[in-house]
Amino acid sequence: MPLLDNYNNDNVFAKIIRGEMPCHKIYEDEGVLSFLDIFPQSEGHAIVIPKKSSRNLLGLNSKDIGRVFGAVQRISKAVNDALNPDGIIITQLNGSTAGQTVFHTHVHIIPCYNEKIIINHNDKKPMMDEENLSILAKKIAAKI
Amino acid sequence: MPLLDNYNNDNVFAKIIRGEMPCHKIYEDEGVLSFLDIFPQSEGHAIVIPKKSSRNLLGLNSKDIGRVFGAVQRISKAVNDALNPDGIIITQLNGSTAGQTVFHTHVHIIPCYNEKIIINHNDKKPMMDEENLSILAKKIAAKI
Repeated sequence: MPLLDNYNNDNVFAKIIRGEMPCHKIYEDEGVLSFLDIFPQSEGHAIVIPKKSSRNLLGLNSKDIGRVFGAVQRISKAVNDALNPDGIIITQLNGSTAGQTVFHTHVHIIPCYNEKIIINHNDKKPMMDEENLSILAKKIAAKI
Repeated sequence: MPLLDNYNNDNVFAKIIRGEMPCHKIYEDEGVLSFLDIFPQSEGHAIVIPKKSSRNLLGLNSKDIGRVFGAVQRISKAVNDALNPDGIIITQLNGSTAGQTVFHTHVHIIPCYNEKIIINHNDKKPMMDEENLSILAKKIAAKI
């Protein structure tokens, strides 16, 4: 049952929640945090996570399901308003076989643009520079 | 704003909801319907839809967000129990640029197996035969 393994507190998102690592924050409330992916598959690629620990969707409590996906919708609307993409892909990966690399439940919001190719999740992606990430996070956050 | 287009009642999922087309049902409640994808990307590929009309995630009402993603979790757990996959990919596509082909909000639950390659969403997929779909839907439904 690889999907039901234990939660490990050392993952990057747990560190961001504890304030031990920085992030380019888009949104935060009592239960949820959203920030930009620093290795984006496209411009405006955002992440939404519950603050409470769970390894993947199977371990998310029912209250957090509404909170997390409510935030996913809210941030998708803000991404749509701020960046006017032609489409938005939502993905949520469970288990390394599915491509999950950080073992704290998270949802990807990936805007798509007609003229640009989305980088695959498993391909090596360049890190976006801090200044552009900061500008982009503020631009999206302004639409929430 | 291609993501905010109108809803068209003629789509396949609207027909399934109205009972005008059959499906291999896994789960149903007041607000949600789940069934197997007949062109699966992997064995056990399931779909969850709200019964109420919306074109994509941006138009989903807040009550249905909890219902739909609560059902996604419940069915993912059932898929995990019934088929013991090594991972599960959740995707929800918005707009044709994102790969959406049926314009009624829907979520994909795609089990992944170490030894098998997942067929890409946009690649041509063989239709699974009715008998196997029926067996598989019952096997997953039994675990809910």
